[in-house]
Amino acid sequence: MMMVFVTSQEKRKMPLQPNGSAAASEMVKEEEHQAGPELQRTGRFFGGLVLDIRRKAPFYWSDIRDAFSLQCLASILFLYCACMSPVITFGGLLGEATKGNISAIESLFGASLTGVAFSLFAGQPLTILGSTGPVLVFEKILFKFCKDYGLSYLSLRTSIGLWTAFLCLVLVATDASSLVCYITRFTEEAFAALICIIFIYEALEKLFQLGEMFPVNMNNDLDNLTFYTCQCSPPANATADIMKVWNQTGFTPNSISWSDLNVTMCTTLHGEFVGSACGHDGPYIPDVLFWSVILFFTTFFLSSFLKQFKTKRYFPTKVRSTISDFAVFLTILVMVLIDYLVGIPSPKLNVPDRFEPTSKHRGWLISPLGENPLWTLFAAAIPALLCTILIFMDQQITAVIVNRKEHRLKKGCGYHLDLLVVSVMLGVCSVMGLPWFVAATVLSITHVNSLKLESACSAPGEQPKFLGIREQRVTGFMIFVLMGLSVFMTSVLKFIPMPVLYGVFLYMGVSSLKGIQFFDRIKLFGMPAKHQPDLIYLRYVPLWKVHIFTIVQLTCLVLLWVIKASPAAVIFPMMVLALVFVRKMMDFCFTKRELSWLDDLMPESKKKKDDDKKKEKEEAERMLETENDAIQFDEGNMLSIPQHVKTLKMSTDPSVVNISDEMAKTGVWKAVSMNADSAKSLKNSSSSQDKMSSVKISIEDEQGEKFVDAETSL
Amino acid sequence: MMMVFVTSQEKRKMPLQPNGSAAASEMVKEEEHQAGPELQRTGRFFGGLVLDIRRKAPFYWSDIRDAFSLQCLASILFLYCACMSPVITFGGLLGEATKGNISAIESLFGASLTGVAFSLFAGQPLTILGSTGPVLVFEKILFKFCKDYGLSYLSLRTSIGLWTAFLCLVLVATDASSLVCYITRFTEEAFAALICIIFIYEALEKLFQLGEMFPVNMNNDLDNLTFYTCQCSPPANATADIMKVWNQTGFTPNSISWSDLNVTMCTTLHGEFVGSACGHDGPYIPDVLFWSVILFFTTFFLSSFLKQFKTKRYFPTKVRSTISDFAVFLTILVMVLIDYLVGIPSPKLNVPDRFEPTSKHRGWLISPLGENPLWTLFAAAIPALLCTILIFMDQQITAVIVNRKEHRLKKGCGYHLDLLVVSVMLGVCSVMGLPWFVAATVLSITHVNSLKLESACSAPGEQPKFLGIREQRVTGFMIFVLMGLSVFMTSVLKFIPMPVLYGVFLYMGVSSLKGIQFFDRIKLFGMPAKHQPDLIYLRYVPLWKVHIFTIVQLTCLVLLWVIKASPAAVIFPMMVLALVFVRKMMDFCFTKRELSWLDDLMPESKKKKDDDKKKEKEEAERMLETENDAIQFDEGNMLSIPQHVKTLKMSTDPSVVNISDEMAKTGVWKAVSMNADSAKSLKNSSSSQDKMSSVKISIEDEQGEKFVDAETSL
Repeated sequence: MMMVFVTSQEKRKMPLQPNGSAAASEMVKEEEHQAGPELQRTGRFFGGLVLDIRRKAPFYWSDIRDAFSLQCLASILFLYCACMSPVITFGGLLGEATKGNISAIESLFGASLTGVAFSLFAGQPLTILGSTGPVLVFEKILFKFCKDYGLSYLSLRTSIGLWTAFLCLVLVATDASSLVCYITRFTEEAFAALICIIFIYEALEKLFQLGEMFPVNMNNDLDNLTFYTCQCSPPANATADIMKVWNQTGFTPNSISWSDLNVTMCTTLHGEFVGSACGHDGPYIPDVLFWSVILFFTTFFLSSFLKQFKTKRYFPTKVRSTISDFAVFLTILVMVLIDYLVGIPSPKLNVPDRFEPTSKHRGWLISPLGENPLWTLFAAAIPALLCTILIFMDQQITAVIVNRKEHRLKKGCGYHLDLLVVSVMLGVCSVMGLPWFVAATVLSITHVNSLKLESACSAPGEQPKFLGIREQRVTGFMIFVLMGLSVFMTSVLKFIPMPVLYGVFLYMGVSSLKGIQFFDRIKLFGMPAKHQPDLIYLRYVPLWKVHIFTIVQLTCLVLLWVIKASPAAVIFPMMVLALVFVRKMMDFCFTKRELSWLDDLMPESKKKKDDDKKKEKEEAERMLETENDAIQFDEGNMLSIPQHVKTLKMSTDPSVVNISDEMAKTGVWKAVSMNADSAKSLKNSSSSQDKMSSVKISIEDEQGEKFVDAETSL
Repeated sequence: MMMVFVTSQEKRKMPLQPNGSAAASEMVKEEEHQAGPELQRTGRFFGGLVLDIRRKAPFYWSDIRDAFSLQCLASILFLYCACMSPVITFGGLLGEATKGNISAIESLFGASLTGVAFSLFAGQPLTILGSTGPVLVFEKILFKFCKDYGLSYLSLRTSIGLWTAFLCLVLVATDASSLVCYITRFTEEAFAALICIIFIYEALEKLFQLGEMFPVNMNNDLDNLTFYTCQCSPPANATADIMKVWNQTGFTPNSISWSDLNVTMCTTLHGEFVGSACGHDGPYIPDVLFWSVILFFTTFFLSSFLKQFKTKRYFPTKVRSTISDFAVFLTILVMVLIDYLVGIPSPKLNVPDRFEPTSKHRGWLISPLGENPLWTLFAAAIPALLCTILIFMDQQITAVIVNRKEHRLKKGCGYHLDLLVVSVMLGVCSVMGLPWFVAATVLSITHVNSLKLESACSAPGEQPKFLGIREQRVTGFMIFVLMGLSVFMTSVLKFIPMPVLYGVFLYMGVSSLKGIQFFDRIKLFGMPAKHQPDLIYLRYVPLWKVHIFTIVQLTCLVLLWVIKASPAAVIFPMMVLALVFVRKMMDFCFTKRELSWLDDLMPESKKKKDDDKKKEKEEAERMLETENDAIQFDEGNMLSIPQHVKTLKMSTDPSVVNISDEMAKTGVWKAVSMNADSAKSLKNSSSSQDKMSSVKISIEDEQGEKFVDAETSL
């Protein structure tokens, strides 16, 4: 049979022979798992792309219409603030790495251009494009290479970019995106977890970097504040280099009145800072660091608090859900106001205020050849290969995460179309000398989360019911349009303190971690068995096997982290590819059934419901078959339930008490099982009643007899 | 009948005629409410006191034995840290108010002495004595009076103290403490709420005061830090007074080299601070304020987090409950360590390091007459009257809160004995010239909370079951012994930053607020009806009446706050007395039944259980009477439950489905009602299923008939 040879990883594909001989329930499951025909290899040139366009085109109008909601405005404002800082920071880093050839304004322009195009034409407009680490590393290495060999960096980069765009087009033409079906939950979660941890790590790292930027005098003697100064003074030994600097700025060594120089001038003229208020490279900066720490954590906690406001008891539902939607934007507003009122000169968001290339030696159009020898045009194909893998993996794995079943997307995905838009824009950006942008995992997850549709009447305490995502193109479009217009909004944006944005990053990283099953499994390590939640896979897979699965995943995560942090970061996307093979190897250690519980794309809750339904059905069947072996009476008139019923834990349907099948189906018995259901859901929170060793129902003597009477008489 | 005329406020008293004609259930309730014979007026001289001693003496050995537990150590360490700062702060304030006549060391000594005596001999050793606001106000007024009229403050104070002690003894002799039964939950909660809010307010106020002590330069130009100085310079106009100071310190105007003076010297010599780094009264102090803010809030959140650690899923129960018990002490340790490592000179706890009177003009024994005229000895009786009310109210209302039914104390209380010990120690303190100490509300609540015995196997999420309080004398004793020894521990204590202690105050204030019904009722204002929790009084009292009750209480609270904050703070205890009368007036606006639900001393959960039990019983009775009107079948075979059953909400016992009474008592039906119970407790957390309009059980055609068959055949 075909089905037998299909690995559990291929479940996204349409089953080839739905009328196979596998067990009916197994078949239902397989059918539920496949994500539609998107990932079928058509065998035709651009076949997948054509299907993508055909599938998405009918939704285009609704993609605009569905955006008319306050939630979308909240999403736009939140993600605009969230996207601005990484784009500018990335631009700044790129500027450092490429000596100003590509910097903040190019990054802003490129992101805006690519983002707008992507939101307009992509298959999955919920994906947010951004700058990723590997791209930065790649540019750094390339710049160093060009400098070492006397090549023109911008031109070589353009030809590599064009090659990459071409190779990506080839991937689109050959339906290569259908390989995405090999990315299972295992790979997906390891990758997403890594990116989230990197996000959190970087948010905290940036806070620590503020400690270097704003050094604090730890051991200040408050009584000596009257002698607390840090003045500029001439350098101890003025080297020739320093003399040259002085001459350039129009000073002679004697014409400088050192004690009148401010910090900037003193640094420029290579003066030395002398005094008790001086740190390593300049004066100690009072208050800024600790104020930044306060801003950072307040932003994190306030936005988390406001986000959870939906489930509070106060105010009408409408008010609560609006506050929840605007949580991060409200937080930023409040924090900007507080920062402004307190007035401490915390570091602020620094947006370029003129629209022109950073470097005067370049324009907005770059020739792929330039001053470089002709062979570079062809040699560029080799790094372009690496670059293509990098773009493909970064793009598609994020797309898989956005398109996962849990999000209940109704308008379908479009892996081929996504890749086409990305590759076209990659070509455009290369020609214009702008950085390259691909799908950014955390921003995309955040975007999707900010558009969650939840049941309106969310009662306090109750987890609101998830209804789906507000799928549309407008939020993405507006975010990137606003980003493009940011150049004209510097007077407003310069009030946003950086620590607040770092706090938002921490919030995004932490909130993206939610719903990653991998972390639930890690938590199981520190949890005594009796406190473990009623997770579906714990019902079917032995705990030690779950732990092994987690350890393998954790090892992969650590290895990825090491590679990402090492100078070999460029090969990172290939290591993600390696995850797929690690997962493939696990087919040998785990049974297919175990893997189907541990590594599955179905949402947890739905599966449990299915499971219960199946149980009920099985139970009903078994009951019909073996009517009389279900109940025995112990000595002392105790009613004991046989072992095979006990193993069902609390899901034991009381109907097995089997007075008679007819009786079991009366309304009263339905009430019983309904109550048993609620008792079961109660179980998660109270495990003291948990794992009863057996279900025993005591019967009083006299009534017991009557009970048996009743049973026999029916 | 006697019972009819008893007001609801008198329920602490033993009912005089238990075999009255009131309804049986009513009688049960009244009996449960009375708190034993402690508050009976005996009619004999010192009768109540003798009974108190007789009642408490048998527990003395167990009061020591029961203290052998790690939890007691945690409680000692926590409360020692918590008590130190208010005692020293109060001493400092008193020192300011009395120009050093009574200051920190006297406060420490007095607190230790009184505390040790109280823990050894009092009726309720769980009460923690401390310094209270009204006492401070009283001392301030007295000091001013003495200064204005040229009297000796310490002597007059001693005679007032002795009079007060005598008057308190009279109160003990006449069993005046039995009046405490007029303090109902209404008064108790208004008072406790006020004290908690004051605690929280003061914690925050102290943080703001740090802002004055450590001024921050809000609008610093970081580029001009090289010119950022604040030097000492001669005062613009040197007055004669200043010249005198200079002469006293051995300086001549010209011998002072102003720019070499540190902050302390500059302030002593009345120099002026000049420079861009200067605030109003001295140099700006970098970093300390914001670091203090970080310490303050981190302490609060960390201790709250660690306290809740008991209900987490991780680690074995033993570890979790130990962490929870030591939460505050662990927090203080961690924060002290962090503060030490960071090294910012935050303000530290300043404990006197030598055991001798602050003022050189006094000893450890004060004559009640001294240099004062003889009439002051007798005139002192008048302020002593005021002082007696103050002591009595402060002491007894806190004792009532400690002894409340919710705490399930097993060893009884001893209002008369408590007052005796307090009054004796008041006399001793007066003679020794030490401040007076009475029961401190928040510290006592915190002490009781820190000794809570809870069910060991507290599962995650589940609220651990409250079992009682670890009643003993050792924690109180050790806290005050340690306090006395603090003089020898200054080298350790000086590492404790004040903001950490303020954070602990905030934590104590906030955690003491928990369990105050008054706040639950305030929250009802902002809550849509459907989200309101299933509070017992909402079942019986109309919402608007609950709101009126809350508003009256809130008004009292605000008035108390105004009085406490105004210069008339001394009459504050009398205003607490007024609360009793306000409550009395409410007998005219509310029915006795409503008041018994709103203003009751029974714990919420117990009452609900009683309520359910009563319901069940009533239901069973009614069922027996009207056997056949319970169930009707609608068209379409729907089983509908009549209206009087529906009003029982979810507590509807399925046994009213009444197939037959015998059937209802079989094991199966017990299982049903057990499930109904769990469904009911589930209801609190999920209110979407709440308030079902009717309970309908559908029955399939065929089985329905059989069902009826079964019923009739039985």
